[in-house]
Amino acid sequence: MSRLKLGIPKGSLQEATLDLFSRAGWKITLGSRSYVPAIDDPEIECLLVRAQEMARYVESGALDAGITGHDWVVETGAAVDELSELIYAKQRLARVRWVLAVPEDSAIREARHLEGKVIATEVVHITESYLAKHGVKARVEFSWGATEVKVPQLADAIVEVTETGSSLRANRLRIVDTVLESATVFIMNRTAAAESWKREKVENLILMLQGAIAAASKVGLLLNVHRDDLPTVLAVLPALKKPTISALSDPDWVAVNTIIEEAVVRQILPKLKAAKAQGIVEYPLNKNVL
Amino acid sequence: MSRLKLGIPKGSLQEATLDLFSRAGWKITLGSRSYVPAIDDPEIECLLVRAQEMARYVESGALDAGITGHDWVVETGAAVDELSELIYAKQRLARVRWVLAVPEDSAIREARHLEGKVIATEVVHITESYLAKHGVKARVEFSWGATEVKVPQLADAIVEVTETGSSLRANRLRIVDTVLESATVFIMNRTAAAESWKREKVENLILMLQGAIAAASKVGLLLNVHRDDLPTVLAVLPALKKPTISALSDPDWVAVNTIIEEAVVRQILPKLKAAKAQGIVEYPLNKNVL
Amino acid sequence: MSRLKLGIPKGSLQEATLDLFSRAGWKITLGSRSYVPAIDDPEIECLLVRAQEMARYVESGALDAGITGHDWVVETGAAVDELSELIYAKQRLARVRWVLAVPEDSAIREARHLEGKVIATEVVHITESYLAKHGVKARVEFSWGATEVKVPQLADAIVEVTETGSSLRANRLRIVDTVLESATVFIMNRTAAAESWKREKVENLILMLQGAIAAASKVGLLLNVHRDDLPTVLAVLPALKKPTISALSDPDWVAVNTIIEEAVVRQILPKLKAAKAQGIVEYPLNKNVL
Amino acid sequence: MSRLKLGIPKGSLQEATLDLFSRAGWKITLGSRSYVPAIDDPEIECLLVRAQEMARYVESGALDAGITGHDWVVETGAAVDELSELIYAKQRLARVRWVLAVPEDSAIREARHLEGKVIATEVVHITESYLAKHGVKARVEFSWGATEVKVPQLADAIVEVTETGSSLRANRLRIVDTVLESATVFIMNRTAAAESWKREKVENLILMLQGAIAAASKVGLLLNVHRDDLPTVLAVLPALKKPTISALSDPDWVAVNTIIEEAVVRQILPKLKAAKAQGIVEYPLNKNVL
Amino acid sequence: MSRLKLGIPKGSLQEATLDLFSRAGWKITLGSRSYVPAIDDPEIECLLVRAQEMARYVESGALDAGITGHDWVVETGAAVDELSELIYAKQRLARVRWVLAVPEDSAIREARHLEGKVIATEVVHITESYLAKHGVKARVEFSWGATEVKVPQLADAIVEVTETGSSLRANRLRIVDTVLESATVFIMNRTAAAESWKREKVENLILMLQGAIAAASKVGLLLNVHRDDLPTVLAVLPALKKPTISALSDPDWVAVNTIIEEAVVRQILPKLKAAKAQGIVEYPLNKNVL
Amino acid sequence: MSRLKLGIPKGSLQEATLDLFSRAGWKITLGSRSYVPAIDDPEIECLLVRAQEMARYVESGALDAGITGHDWVVETGAAVDELSELIYAKQRLARVRWVLAVPEDSAIREARHLEGKVIATEVVHITESYLAKHGVKARVEFSWGATEVKVPQLADAIVEVTETGSSLRANRLRIVDTVLESATVFIMNRTAAAESWKREKVENLILMLQGAIAAASKVGLLLNVHRDDLPTVLAVLPALKKPTISALSDPDWVAVNTIIEEAVVRQILPKLKAAKAQGIVEYPLNKNVL
Repeated sequence: MSRLKLGIPKGSLQEATLDLFSRAGWKITLGSRSYVPAIDDPEIECLLVRAQEMARYVESGALDAGITGHDWVVETGAAVDELSELIYAKQRLARVRWVLAVPEDSAIREARHLEGKVIATEVVHITESYLAKHGVKARVEFSWGATEVKVPQLADAIVEVTETGSSLRANRLRIVDTVLESATVFIMNRTAAAESWKREKVENLILMLQGAIAAASKVGLLLNVHRDDLPTVLAVLPALKKPTISALSDPDWVAVNTIIEEAVVRQILPKLKAAKAQGIVEYPLNKNVL
Repeated sequence: MSRLKLGIPKGSLQEATLDLFSRAGWKITLGSRSYVPAIDDPEIECLLVRAQEMARYVESGALDAGITGHDWVVETGAAVDELSELIYAKQRLARVRWVLAVPEDSAIREARHLEGKVIATEVVHITESYLAKHGVKARVEFSWGATEVKVPQLADAIVEVTETGSSLRANRLRIVDTVLESATVFIMNRTAAAESWKREKVENLILMLQGAIAAASKVGLLLNVHRDDLPTVLAVLPALKKPTISALSDPDWVAVNTIIEEAVVRQILPKLKAAKAQGIVEYPLNKNVL
Repeated sequence: MSRLKLGIPKGSLQEATLDLFSRAGWKITLGSRSYVPAIDDPEIECLLVRAQEMARYVESGALDAGITGHDWVVETGAAVDELSELIYAKQRLARVRWVLAVPEDSAIREARHLEGKVIATEVVHITESYLAKHGVKARVEFSWGATEVKVPQLADAIVEVTETGSSLRANRLRIVDTVLESATVFIMNRTAAAESWKREKVENLILMLQGAIAAASKVGLLLNVHRDDLPTVLAVLPALKKPTISALSDPDWVAVNTIIEEAVVRQILPKLKAAKAQGIVEYPLNKNVL
Repeated sequence: MSRLKLGIPKGSLQEATLDLFSRAGWKITLGSRSYVPAIDDPEIECLLVRAQEMARYVESGALDAGITGHDWVVETGAAVDELSELIYAKQRLARVRWVLAVPEDSAIREARHLEGKVIATEVVHITESYLAKHGVKARVEFSWGATEVKVPQLADAIVEVTETGSSLRANRLRIVDTVLESATVFIMNRTAAAESWKREKVENLILMLQGAIAAASKVGLLLNVHRDDLPTVLAVLPALKKPTISALSDPDWVAVNTIIEEAVVRQILPKLKAAKAQGIVEYPLNKNVL
Repeated sequence: MSRLKLGIPKGSLQEATLDLFSRAGWKITLGSRSYVPAIDDPEIECLLVRAQEMARYVESGALDAGITGHDWVVETGAAVDELSELIYAKQRLARVRWVLAVPEDSAIREARHLEGKVIATEVVHITESYLAKHGVKARVEFSWGATEVKVPQLADAIVEVTETGSSLRANRLRIVDTVLESATVFIMNRTAAAESWKREKVENLILMLQGAIAAASKVGLLLNVHRDDLPTVLAVLPALKKPTISALSDPDWVAVNTIIEEAVVRQILPKLKAAKAQGIVEYPLNKNVL
Repeated sequence: MSRLKLGIPKGSLQEATLDLFSRAGWKITLGSRSYVPAIDDPEIECLLVRAQEMARYVESGALDAGITGHDWVVETGAAVDELSELIYAKQRLARVRWVLAVPEDSAIREARHLEGKVIATEVVHITESYLAKHGVKARVEFSWGATEVKVPQLADAIVEVTETGSSLRANRLRIVDTVLESATVFIMNRTAAAESWKREKVENLILMLQGAIAAASKVGLLLNVHRDDLPTVLAVLPALKKPTISALSDPDWVAVNTIIEEAVVRQILPKLKAAKAQGIVEYPLNKNVL
């Protein structure tokens, strides 16, 4: 039987990824040889690989597909297909930025001020491309971690990843510029992508992962409403979603069932009540495929 | 933009409160300055304040509204509006009692036996009111905590809070009288309550909190039943709830969807089966607004 | 009031059992006297008892009913009624096997090679029956635990319980034969089983436990489909389940609601989408009674 | 090279035993195969074995020597040599008693009241010997643990191990009689004990273990005293210990160095000060061999 | 037998106090009734009491003696004897200051700027005395804790305890003035202090506690030196300590044994080596009574 | 005042290093800005730096001195002085080897078999030097960690650090060759090493660190012996150590005090007893400078 060799990111993305797969329908279990986790699908073979190394191994064919950051695809320059962004809802892993940052009181205010300076970063190639684009010469030093504490003693500036900027602020750093935006991506080896079985397997996997991601930020709403009040109730619901309206035994009343973003429920629910909806119930979803 | 200054109780109620807000649709995150938690609603500004001090700060206007115990409103004598009781379902925080308790073998059997005795308590004013009401003179000492272990070595009696009485029994104490009943309440500053924007904001907040509280003790039931058996099935369901009955493609059958207290499911479900209901499914709820 | 004396298995099955009862509608709370847990049903009195000792105490009438393994019923030879297997879904407690195992390089290849050997096991009687059945004489030693590490230094073979065999492989053991298959069972004292009140109480309990077990491996699927596409959609759904099809306000469309095994969702959902189902939603269940 | 096969007790005694060996000069390390711990002495091979099974395996020669309780030697009836009691100082493992215990309000007041009763215990043979000695017939049931919670529901009496009796009191049990006193013992296989190399190895091991045990409850005291005050100071020190008295450069003064029980320091030190001792210093010991 | 009723401070000082007693020779064990810890001295009866309440209960005679902070003696105004300061070495509990603190950018620069302001503090009486001394009128509010986060939203200034000031700085507060200096003290009831048995018991206890405190910051130094080099070596050692100099079998050499502050070893040891001391050994102490 | 800028290795060596400094007499405390730990010596300024980056920053002068591995000095090619090896006793950090390792069943048996292969390692330069020395061409890939699980799926061979080889064996790898031996070293910037104040400060620091290291594997032995038996006792003690022999008040007896390796005590102590030594006491050391 053919099997899909799939790289799961080890480290900070690992737990969120295993949780996402679980919600999508695949149970991945770490065993005694924890780098080869078990998965309850005989058509898939998993390998835990660091996000930084994923693209390299997908490019070489050691893996057919994998989940990593767009940033590491760029940094390694690996020739792979980026099939789909995975914006893990309710997880901390939405979009991130690699930024050029300096101490709050630094004289560096824009890229050209970096001339002759020392920059510490985990993404040496991305940083060098950025400097080249701005026609600046500076020394870029590979940092093994804890980059944000290296200025000013050990470097003049850093290029570091951030989501909200709060860690940078806590270290009294100022963001000078955005060097690269990134998100988690599902990547695939180009030869494997040309095999129809592997391609279809991967597409179904992405469908389910996206279904689980979509469901995590949504809920179902059920309510009863008198036919006279139906237009008012429908006017409150988001226009894009087409609710399911079903008949009740009492012909004057209908049941409305709709899927909406959880984040808007707190605004919509008081309005639904004002519009005379009754027996309003919000229920959780596992998956949602439009 | 106007913002509602909202006090969240720090300490024993804190985790349950954050969980309740999360289920109601507001995510509150403790950050590095943990007494000013972040909330994902730009119209609200949170402050973590001890339940004991909440009423004082809502009275002074330092906060517009807050969640605390009715007991602390009484103890501090703060002039605030108690808008709504919040009986957190599935949490340990329903109603509590402040009771007068003594060692099992104490001669104190009623309030008047306290004459000339020493009473340790965290609620000095409530206790003094109680003594005054009974025309008894006794020394009331403020206790910094662990009050139930102070008798008999350090005090003759205590006034202490209890939910089930089990901690008192474990300390071999006997309850003599109930001094005050209390529950968690949503309180509001009187000036703020007169501002329409703040008032409406608070009312919507309470609507959603109560919706989440109601849902926590309820579940949805879905079942199919032949029209001939419908009266028998409906007879089993609690009379007060009006179930949603919808037509199926087979005109002889209908689907019934109803919301009931989780606690009665174990009694009702065997009867539904006996009444020939089919495909009975119980599903969880997030919110329920009647 | 009559009360059912119910034994809850202490130890490895304990947490899963408390969780199952919670999902079935009974909250069992461990208190200070942790062997007599509290249960929120005045008709039941719980006692925590080791699985190994459960059948003995149900037989003697100290308990009316209990949950234990079929293996311990056999090992103790207790005369009790095994009413129902409980295959806890999503728990690790499905079916287990007691197997005869030896070191990978042992010369023992079948039962008759055990002649004159030393066997360590927790189930001495089961093992002796097995030997008797094969006409073999060997010394069977009671093992207090950690049996799988006793070969080869302390025993020639072991009879040990296993679910997947992974612990045996990790200890470099080879399975020679299956000695007994077992599962968790609900057992009842024979005199108690003849009392109609106790019998009915136990049957309702089992109904709810099985309802919770069934729900744990299933999910609900909701979708909308044009009447023209309904046959294609129905063809995709598992044949045995009869979905609920209800009318929508738009007469050309229907809503389909069905309960399916969670494990097949990842295969069915892509096909439903191909069959033009819309607004597909998967939602979780608490209980499912067919 | 010849090696001593030594059994280390797994479970409640394990940590204290590893700590004792460490203080005696042998480092035992639990590895991936945790039942065969590594020891930094090529002449010893360790095996972790339950205390209950130790005597059986030392008798059979699977082990040359081991550490277990005297009680388990008696219970298993194993023919082994008990070489030395090990009273682990500062550990909870001094001497224990197996006692016959009943509920506080039981009518059982002495052994003969057990006639026809059910007794639960982990030491079936010891209990049966005790009954035989008293000419009483009762049913003795093997208990897998948590024996003290079995009365009165599941047994009439228990035979259980206790050190201080506090766990029995907490369970509201009354001690009727002492069935057996026990302590930790170092046991040896009789054939191995006749081999001079193994015998000497074991004796040196015991010497070091006892040296570490002795040191744990003792401390060193150093002080300076004028020759005139020496008799007063010596009168304060325990008579049995001969202190080391050494000359100082000032011929009028001497230094006294002695080893005493830590428990008496708090009584002796104020008296030494009163006797004009100066520069009194207490220092810790690792080992003490008299 | 007479017993000394001794209060042990519950809470932040608790662990350090139990550790100090253990090093002084008394083992205090928290049991199931954790407010009445066991102590291995039949002449002492312990009670865990909050530091804030200790002086009140020592004053009333509920306790004979206790350990608390000087600050709480002042705050409660209790008439007790402060017998001895206990500067727990190597613990965080040396001396502390209650300081008046304000936000970094506050206009309050000295006591008189407090006129009409709100001050939050746990020590209401100490703060009121301070204000009275400076002739200032302000509102002093009792704070239940987390005082340092109350400015500026809930108070204008605070009076809070600090050791190094780092927590205040982390909250961006500025210290305006020191209100009270405090340290841990051993206090005694005045009637009890007049009973000779109790007085002597307490004095011996303090002797041992101070002996353990002194030892914690000191070490022993042992070295050999040629008589010719002895003056140089002695010149390096702190002048106040009289080292023990003892004869060796080789009459040209002597051994020097001395007790010094651990903190100076790193300065002295290189000098001792330069002065030709040999075989220098530093060893730990348990107690040191001068 | 001049200050020594000292790099402390962050990560796996960190805890052992802080513990070593503590035993040597310097207390280093991690604070809120954990990369700049506090040290109780105003003449030193600490910075936490990864071992991999230490040599680079000592070379550049950002640090005056630091502790790192010899391997990282070689890998970075930094021009720094390696002043002293620090073999942390009782820690896991003695000497390590970087080895070339392959799967157990690999055909690679010596360096020349690597031609054309892929090698994963954290030390790319060291590995390339090794290949150049053997005249072999292979692709060396930087590994971000978990290198030992990369063969055979992701690489043909690895160069990985090992102490005992057990982690390699657990991953079923075979060691082909040793590429580099390494130990923890104290390194110094060459310019700083030429400044006398910094040089002396560093030398005293190393003296104390080595004193603490030496003491950790040693203990003191004290014993009394009759002058007649002294030669026999001295013959048992290690020849190289000169024990301190001091006179006692009884002229027939002497006291012997010596420092020996803890590892040999278990061999020597039984012989000392046989040689009629009395009152043998072993005591712990803090530091030992010869």
